[in-house]
Amino acid sequence: MKRIGILTSGGDAPGMNAAIRAVARKAMYEGLEVYGINYGFAGLVAGDIFRMDEATVADKIQRGGTFLYSARYPEFAKEEGQLKGIEQLNKFGIEALVVIGGDGSYHGALRLTEHGYNAIGLPGTIDNDVPYTDFTIGFDTAVNTVLEAVDRIRDTATSHERTFIIEVMGRGAGDIALWSGVAGGAEEIIIPEHDFDIKQVAEQIQSGRDRGKKHTLIVLAEGVMHAQDFEKELDKYGDFHARSTVLGHVQRGGAPTARDRVMASQMGAFAVELLLEGKGGLAVGIENNRLTYHNMTDLFDSKHHAELSLFNLNHDLSN
Amino acid sequence: MKRIGILTSGGDAPGMNAAIRAVARKAMYEGLEVYGINYGFAGLVAGDIFRMDEATVADKIQRGGTFLYSARYPEFAKEEGQLKGIEQLNKFGIEALVVIGGDGSYHGALRLTEHGYNAIGLPGTIDNDVPYTDFTIGFDTAVNTVLEAVDRIRDTATSHERTFIIEVMGRGAGDIALWSGVAGGAEEIIIPEHDFDIKQVAEQIQSGRDRGKKHTLIVLAEGVMHAQDFEKELDKYGDFHARSTVLGHVQRGGAPTARDRVMASQMGAFAVELLLEGKGGLAVGIENNRLTYHNMTDLFDSKHHAELSLFNLNHDLSN
Amino acid sequence: MKRIGILTSGGDAPGMNAAIRAVARKAMYEGLEVYGINYGFAGLVAGDIFRMDEATVADKIQRGGTFLYSARYPEFAKEEGQLKGIEQLNKFGIEALVVIGGDGSYHGALRLTEHGYNAIGLPGTIDNDVPYTDFTIGFDTAVNTVLEAVDRIRDTATSHERTFIIEVMGRGAGDIALWSGVAGGAEEIIIPEHDFDIKQVAEQIQSGRDRGKKHTLIVLAEGVMHAQDFEKELDKYGDFHARSTVLGHVQRGGAPTARDRVMASQMGAFAVELLLEGKGGLAVGIENNRLTYHNMTDLFDSKHHAELSLFNLNHDLSN
Amino acid sequence: MKRIGILTSGGDAPGMNAAIRAVARKAMYEGLEVYGINYGFAGLVAGDIFRMDEATVADKIQRGGTFLYSARYPEFAKEEGQLKGIEQLNKFGIEALVVIGGDGSYHGALRLTEHGYNAIGLPGTIDNDVPYTDFTIGFDTAVNTVLEAVDRIRDTATSHERTFIIEVMGRGAGDIALWSGVAGGAEEIIIPEHDFDIKQVAEQIQSGRDRGKKHTLIVLAEGVMHAQDFEKELDKYGDFHARSTVLGHVQRGGAPTARDRVMASQMGAFAVELLLEGKGGLAVGIENNRLTYHNMTDLFDSKHHAELSLFNLNHDLSN
Repeated sequence: MKRIGILTSGGDAPGMNAAIRAVARKAMYEGLEVYGINYGFAGLVAGDIFRMDEATVADKIQRGGTFLYSARYPEFAKEEGQLKGIEQLNKFGIEALVVIGGDGSYHGALRLTEHGYNAIGLPGTIDNDVPYTDFTIGFDTAVNTVLEAVDRIRDTATSHERTFIIEVMGRGAGDIALWSGVAGGAEEIIIPEHDFDIKQVAEQIQSGRDRGKKHTLIVLAEGVMHAQDFEKELDKYGDFHARSTVLGHVQRGGAPTARDRVMASQMGAFAVELLLEGKGGLAVGIENNRLTYHNMTDLFDSKHHAELSLFNLNHDLSN
Repeated sequence: MKRIGILTSGGDAPGMNAAIRAVARKAMYEGLEVYGINYGFAGLVAGDIFRMDEATVADKIQRGGTFLYSARYPEFAKEEGQLKGIEQLNKFGIEALVVIGGDGSYHGALRLTEHGYNAIGLPGTIDNDVPYTDFTIGFDTAVNTVLEAVDRIRDTATSHERTFIIEVMGRGAGDIALWSGVAGGAEEIIIPEHDFDIKQVAEQIQSGRDRGKKHTLIVLAEGVMHAQDFEKELDKYGDFHARSTVLGHVQRGGAPTARDRVMASQMGAFAVELLLEGKGGLAVGIENNRLTYHNMTDLFDSKHHAELSLFNLNHDLSN
Repeated sequence: MKRIGILTSGGDAPGMNAAIRAVARKAMYEGLEVYGINYGFAGLVAGDIFRMDEATVADKIQRGGTFLYSARYPEFAKEEGQLKGIEQLNKFGIEALVVIGGDGSYHGALRLTEHGYNAIGLPGTIDNDVPYTDFTIGFDTAVNTVLEAVDRIRDTATSHERTFIIEVMGRGAGDIALWSGVAGGAEEIIIPEHDFDIKQVAEQIQSGRDRGKKHTLIVLAEGVMHAQDFEKELDKYGDFHARSTVLGHVQRGGAPTARDRVMASQMGAFAVELLLEGKGGLAVGIENNRLTYHNMTDLFDSKHHAELSLFNLNHDLSN
Repeated sequence: MKRIGILTSGGDAPGMNAAIRAVARKAMYEGLEVYGINYGFAGLVAGDIFRMDEATVADKIQRGGTFLYSARYPEFAKEEGQLKGIEQLNKFGIEALVVIGGDGSYHGALRLTEHGYNAIGLPGTIDNDVPYTDFTIGFDTAVNTVLEAVDRIRDTATSHERTFIIEVMGRGAGDIALWSGVAGGAEEIIIPEHDFDIKQVAEQIQSGRDRGKKHTLIVLAEGVMHAQDFEKELDKYGDFHARSTVLGHVQRGGAPTARDRVMASQMGAFAVELLLEGKGGLAVGIENNRLTYHNMTDLFDSKHHAELSLFNLNHDLSN
């Protein structure tokens, strides 16, 4: 193996650039040639591919987003798309790939592996919703970004003794809500993975107020419902004058945290090692603080599990 | 004069605590006794008043919000409410006041002055919508908070080549949008003080794309319309797939910037000096980098003017 | 068991307040009474002890430092000091304790356990130098604080094509240097746990320059030597005009990261559970992403091991 | 005039990139061609010059440092250097320049003007030590960076009841110390522009402690003396166990604040307007919140004056 390619796919996440840098630097260190593929699988098919050198990835580790750009490209699910991609791989002499993105992007990676082009997947998404890894690249940064917002809102909530509903990202997963809720000292965390009874929530807010609590912070995962709908539901059970904040795409950007950069660097180097061992079709993860890998097919049958112990912890600490 | 009181009124703003500290410390330095009044005019009427000492304001300069709390209290517009407030002032022996808040709160302050209790107003609001001052306490912090969000969204916007609409606070004023738009390198700034033609906006986005621009950032003042409505309007003129972000109450919190803390400190000390000179019914401002004051009545007849030169500047630089 | 006490000891670390809050809230949730002990073991001996309620720990989770204060108190190593402390425990009816600090403070905790007052230790120090735990409370925040500084210095280093030596804390441990070095993309990381050859460092800087590298960042653990001494050593091998920055106590403060707050919350609640099970003399840790505990005596015979794989990783990626 | 050049000179400062972008965009908007000159006057002489287009300055406004690099180049003081520079200007057809840097770099700019190549200077330095401008580009960012450090150190200072000496940049000027000291609530600010008596400082610290102050923060301008020397001086008058922190080059980097970006944008556009009017040899400033300009020669005879009213303000508020 002499040449590898790198692409990022799906929603961008902080730390993707650190992962790209790690793949590129490690590969060059091992004597490989490295090609960057812009715009994910769309760019692969279109041949938007360029030779990287050491300077290409200089001063990128600290930047949010992905300098290889990302794009949705459902057409790659079809063999026609894959064959066009392979044509480009052949054209550039690329023998193997690292694909950084959510597990949705692993389908394309697996197809390429089946065609003889080994691909290793790195979990790059703020949502932390990839199976067989405790953390995804970008999650720690997103949680800290949300936390900063929670801290700010706490200032206003305290000053005015108000109830705030803060809607956070995570698609179907409650991880961002759980972590930022525990870290932010939220009174309530509402996630898809756990039932909630809005009447009970209302009663707890009221009981907190009766005991002298100055404010109530509710962190709501977008996978449950929208903040404004939650606000309306809540208003049925009392006069809470709750304010909603939808943090939105702010959560996707920003300089990655140390944790995300270190993990991205470890995973990126590990992916190159796996490729050098002739492996493909594997998804890299971090489990119990150790780098691991699993067959991509195993991930498709699995579901990510949120750390529900944090939910119970918050219950005990928020009263 | 031996005793003064301090209260914060209206929406909280970063730097209010720095202003409270400055008023309290300067007054104590001048040999006065200082009383804190919780919850604005509501707390005044309710007698929620306490003696402050030097330690009361220690380690507060860096905190967002207001540790004296704030509350809306329209009842203070009526003489009945004012007389109750005066009863409390007499009870505590408070002879004069500093009121920190938007110019709405100056009405109550003026009434107290007319009743013989000198009150000085300090402009505390993130909206920068107070006449006769170039800047209000909290504005610089809010602009920097918005700017951080714009910088983060830029990461995602660049990675995905998207159009983002970022709705920012300011009520009727476009100042937060203007400053954060110029500083954030926004392609478009939409404010209440300047006409806009959504068709033209759409054309400019398209023309930017045609020239290779990777993304478009539109900063929208809440006083114009909501981001989602703007998004719908925009979609009438092309397929922009714009994403909206409503920053919301995040803009109101956080540790104040150096500028806000210094200005709040200057204004707080100045208010005490004015009280010591026997003055009341005055609104403090900063104009052309100098501390100034005006009769509160002058403010009620005036309107704050946004710095429209920034709008034109952005036009020239964003292309 | 009806009453427990909490104290913080040794150098302060971000997340200590989150740990205090978690201990207090969990204990109250379990029906216990909670007492705060100011100034560590010194305050214990002096009886600087107060009853905590739910409000005592409100709005503390986000604050740096420790609101229970900390102090060095070597006198507690002697039995005389311990007996005085026990006198105070008896006076306040405190039956058990949670001690938050470095493993140095576990000696005092163990003595109290031996006297029949169960004590659980939580690892609170930015240095990450406690055995039997992968991470200490405060470490993640300190690393991110250092990283922000590295990112800033990178701006200047790039603009001027300079070599910078950044001295970071950690006492005898290289963990802060390792993590911030990898995350910051440092060319060199110098730690006590790994030999280095200053001549080789000089050669690598020169070789990087020859290949067009715009700058060199060297992260130096304080346990190796001082930055200015390193600068002088380096100058023996070439004309590097290196600049030194000693980050100092900035690394100890600031709002804790999400990771530190969550881990502190988990550990705090876990400590209360252990006390409720009648256990004492135990040190809580997090190992392979799971909460664990060990006898304090085990820690005294052990040594913390830095994650040296990060050193090798950086070697491969920084070229 | 059809072609202009831009260069940055002297120490880098946050906001320089925003200024470069503004000059480039405004010039292009006015139909001019724009050339970037790398490494200041050194690059001018060496012909390290390139054509800029709109994309060159995209995504630069938020970055610290200067992407045109900077370098010291004392050789430009001699006519020989200037003539070589002019040769390059002729070669590239550059008729006029904008020079961004401290007033030291204005000497070179004035020489070029005298040779018929109009040059406008923009004050780019964190030190705020340029005459005829209230603020320089980079100052607001540096002050906020220092302030963050002061806030962090306050956490540790409070937790341990310690005295901290924080040495900040500014060369001969005390502005960074003054602003960050007032904003940080420092007990003492030591600047070159105002006498101080170390014995009196010691007495005030002691008196603060006697009144129950938990800590003392001293902000020391580097122009006075080094922190460690100050520490030694202080120790002569009591047992303060003061800790010193030298913030160093951290103060020079980082994303610019809103204020710095807006001011840099205004100044950059203004410089182009002045060039279009055929003017040269002028230094742009902001005075009393208005854009102004002065002959560069006027600056050479003048001295920047720190805002000493802040020193007095801090005296009254810090007790």
